Amino acid sequence: MFGKETYIRRRAELKKLVGNGVILLFGNNEAPANYPANAYSPFRQDSSFLYFFGQHRDGLVGVIDVDNDTETLIGDDIDIEDIVWFGSVDSVSNLASQVGVAKSGPMKELKSICNEALRLHRKVHFLPPYRFDTMIQIMDLLGTHPSQQREAASLELIKAVVKMRSTKEAQEVEAIERACEVGYQMHTKAMLTAKPGVTERFVGGIVDGTARSLASKVSFATIFSQHGEIMHGCPSAAPLEAGRLALCDAGCELDDYCSDHTRTYPVTGKFTQRQLDIYKIVEECHDYALKVARPGVRWYDVHMDICRLMTERLKELGLMKGDTEEAVRAGAHAMFLPHGLGHMMGMDVHDMEGLGQQYVGFDEETQPSTQFGTNCLRLGRRLEENFVVTDEPGIYFIPALIDDWRSKGHCEEYLNFELLDTYKDFGGIRIEDDLLITKDGCRFLGKNRIPYHPADVEEFMAK
Amino acid sequence: MFGKETYIRRRAELKKLVGNGVILLFGNNEAPANYPANAYSPFRQDSSFLYFFGQHRDGLVGVIDVDNDTETLIGDDIDIEDIVWFGSVDSVSNLASQVGVAKSGPMKELKSICNEALRLHRKVHFLPPYRFDTMIQIMDLLGTHPSQQREAASLELIKAVVKMRSTKEAQEVEAIERACEVGYQMHTKAMLTAKPGVTERFVGGIVDGTARSLASKVSFATIFSQHGEIMHGCPSAAPLEAGRLALCDAGCELDDYCSDHTRTYPVTGKFTQRQLDIYKIVEECHDYALKVARPGVRWYDVHMDICRLMTERLKELGLMKGDTEEAVRAGAHAMFLPHGLGHMMGMDVHDMEGLGQQYVGFDEETQPSTQFGTNCLRLGRRLEENFVVTDEPGIYFIPALIDDWRSKGHCEEYLNFELLDTYKDFGGIRIEDDLLITKDGCRFLGKNRIPYHPADVEEFMAK
Ligand SMILES: [Mn+2]
Ligand SMILES: [Mn+2]
Repeated sequence: MFGKETYIRRRAELKKLVGNGVILLFGNNEAPANYPANAYSPFRQDSSFLYFFGQHRDGLVGVIDVDNDTETLIGDDIDIEDIVWFGSVDSVSNLASQVGVAKSGPMKELKSICNEALRLHRKVHFLPPYRFDTMIQIMDLLGTHPSQQREAASLELIKAVVKMRSTKEAQEVEAIERACEVGYQMHTKAMLTAKPGVTERFVGGIVDGTARSLASKVSFATIFSQHGEIMHGCPSAAPLEAGRLALCDAGCELDDYCSDHTRTYPVTGKFTQRQLDIYKIVEECHDYALKVARPGVRWYDVHMDICRLMTERLKELGLMKGDTEEAVRAGAHAMFLPHGLGHMMGMDVHDMEGLGQQYVGFDEETQPSTQFGTNCLRLGRRLEENFVVTDEPGIYFIPALIDDWRSKGHCEEYLNFELLDTYKDFGGIRIEDDLLITKDGCRFLGKNRIPYHPADVEEFMAK
Repeated sequence: MFGKETYIRRRAELKKLVGNGVILLFGNNEAPANYPANAYSPFRQDSSFLYFFGQHRDGLVGVIDVDNDTETLIGDDIDIEDIVWFGSVDSVSNLASQVGVAKSGPMKELKSICNEALRLHRKVHFLPPYRFDTMIQIMDLLGTHPSQQREAASLELIKAVVKMRSTKEAQEVEAIERACEVGYQMHTKAMLTAKPGVTERFVGGIVDGTARSLASKVSFATIFSQHGEIMHGCPSAAPLEAGRLALCDAGCELDDYCSDHTRTYPVTGKFTQRQLDIYKIVEECHDYALKVARPGVRWYDVHMDICRLMTERLKELGLMKGDTEEAVRAGAHAMFLPHGLGHMMGMDVHDMEGLGQQYVGFDEETQPSTQFGTNCLRLGRRLEENFVVTDEPGIYFIPALIDDWRSKGHCEEYLNFELLDTYKDFGGIRIEDDLLITKDGCRFLGKNRIPYHPADVEEFMAK
C-alpha cells in the first residue's frame, strides 16, 4: 500500500474523468477451490480496487458518488470467532481512513445506495466483472443478468481507469523493479536446476516456490516445458531430455506489481547449431524492439517490423519463401509467431486485460486485427512515457498447426512444408523482458539481467 | 485416474443409492484470479465429479439418468486456436469412453436435458455448489437463485455420495499414502530451513514449492507461523525469532488425494521448559487418539476424552481449575482448544466439507454441538473401517480470546486468567497426523514419520 495521499489523488482524478454518477469498484472475495472454506491462496484483490482503495481484505466494495463528492468503503466487520481463525483485522472504518476515505458502512448499505441510485435514474458505473460472485452481486444489486454485464459495464469508467493505470507512477515503477528482481531469482534458479533427468514439474516447483518465498505469488501459471511450442504449457511429469530446449515463462507478484520474463535454454546447457539458428532470430527480434521502443512509436508497427524481420531470416533458413511483404500481409509468419510482440504490464501481468483489449491496447487510430496471430497482439497503440510493456518475440514449431495449414494449403506459397516437417520435434523459443518506456527510449526493468545472449546462457549454465 | 471399471462400478452403486431422477455432477471451470484469462492454477476439478467421472478437464458436466439408466458426459470440444495455446486435448467423446461413459454431447445439450426433465416434473439431483460460476449455471438451467441452491440440493444425492466417499478403497488409500510421503518432504524441509532470521514467508515458500515440485499443489493454504495461536495464519514477512515456536500445518494434493500434517517446533531447534510443558500435553492427547481410534468408536467421544485429558493436565500447570467434568461441560477447555480433534480426509483435505458437515461428520445418533470450540468439530460419528481421519489436538494462547472471556467473566471458575496473561506471548502448538481406521484399530498413513516426539524433533533439527 502506498501513502493515503496517493489514493486520495487518484480518486479525485477518477471523479474528474468520469464526470457524474455513482462508481462502484468491487473488491474481490475469497475464491473457493474445492469447498467453500478452502479458497485459492493467497487471496488476490482486484487490481482497480487496489489502485483506488489500496486495501487487501476480501469482501470490500468502494463507492464513489461523483455528483455528491462522497466516498464510502463498504464491508462487514469480523467477529471474535473470525479473529480466532484468521487473527485480528482492522475495522472497515479504520481501513477506510487509512486510505483517506471518510465514510464506511456494512454490506447492506450497498443495497440501499444502489436502490436509491436506481430510483433516481442515476448512472451506476461498474467495470466488467470477471469473478462470478461479483456477477451475482451485481445481478442482485442492479438486476442485470451475468451474461449482460460485460456490455452493461461503464465505458466512461473503463476509459478513465485505463487512462490512469496505463502510465505508471514512480512508486509503481519501483514496485515493478522489485518484482523483476524476484523474477531474476526465479529464472536463474530454474536455469541452474534444469538438467537431463530432472522433471519439468520439479523445476516448475522451484520457480513457484521462489515466488512464494521472496514475493507473494506467481503472476500467472508458470510455464516450464520442453514443449515451448505450446504457448501455455503446464510443467509435466516428464523428465528433461538432453538435446531439447526448455522454455520458462514466469513472473511474480510482489507488493501488488508483476514481473514477466521468458527464457529458453538447452537442457544440457549447450545449444546445438540448429537451435542456435532459430534462437538468434528471436534474439535479433527481441533486441530490435528494444532499439526502437520510445514514446510516439506504435507498438503495432514494431510488431509488424518484427514479423517482417523474422520472415526475412526464416527465408534465409529456407523455412519461408516468396515476397516478405506479401507473406506478412497474408499472415504466413503466424505459423511461427502466433502471438503478439508484447502487452502492458503492471498490477496485472497482462495489465487491465479484463477491462477489454480494445480499450487497453488500442484506440481510434490503431484497431485490433482479426488475422490469426496478430489477433493475439494485446497492445497496438502508440507508446507513451512511463508505459511498462513486455518485449517477447518467439518462434514455435507447432505440429498440429503445421498439419492443419498444410492440409488446407494455407499460405503454402510462403511456407516450406517439407522442411517444416523436419522441425516438428524442435519445440519453441521465446525471449521476454519487461521494458519501461522513458522520455526518449526505453530501458529494461530489474537490476539484474537474466542471461539471454547464447554465450551468456551457456556460461551461466556451466556454473 | 483409476481404471474405467472403477468409475463404472461407482456410478452403478450411485444409481442404486439415489434410486430415481436425473443426477447432475458439475465439473469445475477455470477460476479467474484477476482477469478472465488469468486463472488460479493449477486447475482444481470438483472431487465428486472426479470420483464418478475421473476426468480433469474444465468445462465438463456428468449426467446420470437413473430411470433410463443412461450416462452422458457433457462438454464442448476445443479448436485449433486452443490447441496452439494449451496443446492437444482429447475429444469429449474420448474422455467419456475412457471412463466407461457411453454418451457425450455439447454443453447446449445439457439445457435440453434439464428442460425435458423439468417439463416431465422429474427430480433433478445436484450437490450444493461452491463455485459461483456453477451457481449461475444451475440458475440458468433450473431457475433456482444462487442463494436458494444449498437448500435445493438433493439430500438423497448428498447422502449417497457421503456414504460412498467416506469409506476409502484400497487404491484411494495408496494414493493418500503417496501424498503423505510428499507431506513428509514438505515438513522436513521446513524443519531444516527454519532458523532465527529466516522469514516465515521464506519457509512457507519452500513448503509450497516442494508440493508443486513433487505433487500437484498444496491441499490448502500453507500455515507457517510463529503465531500458531492464529488457526489459519498466513506466513508473514517477519523473520523467525529465537525463543519462539513455529507451527507448520501443510499438506499436498497428489493424484487427486490429500495429505494434512502439522508440526510445531522451536525456531532454535531446542524447546524451553515452558514450551515442553505444553507440548507434552498436546503430544499425550495426540497419542491417546491413536490408541483408541477403531471401528465403532465415536470420534465425538474421543474428542471429549481429549478435552478432559487436556483439562486435567492444564489444571496440573495451574492454568485451569475446578471440576474437570464441569469445566469441559461449560466449554472452558475451548479457551485452549477452539477446534475439533480431527476431520475426514480424502480427495478434499476436509473431505466432502462442501456437502455439509451435518451429513459428513454426523448422523442421527451423533449431532453437531453448538458450543464454541466443539462446534468446530467436523467429525463426530462412529468410525468405520477404511475411514481416513486426522488426529490434530492443539493448545493455543489467543490474546484476543483471553481478553474477551476475561472481560465477560466467561468460565472464570475454571480458568486462571492471572496465569493465562503471562502466556500471551506463547503462541500455539498443534500436532497432526493422518490415520487410516483399520479392522481393529488404526495406523498412520505415510511410510516415513515426520518427527514429533520432542527428543526426535531436537535431534532432527540439529542436523
Ligand atoms: Mn508476457
Ligand atoms: Mn487438518
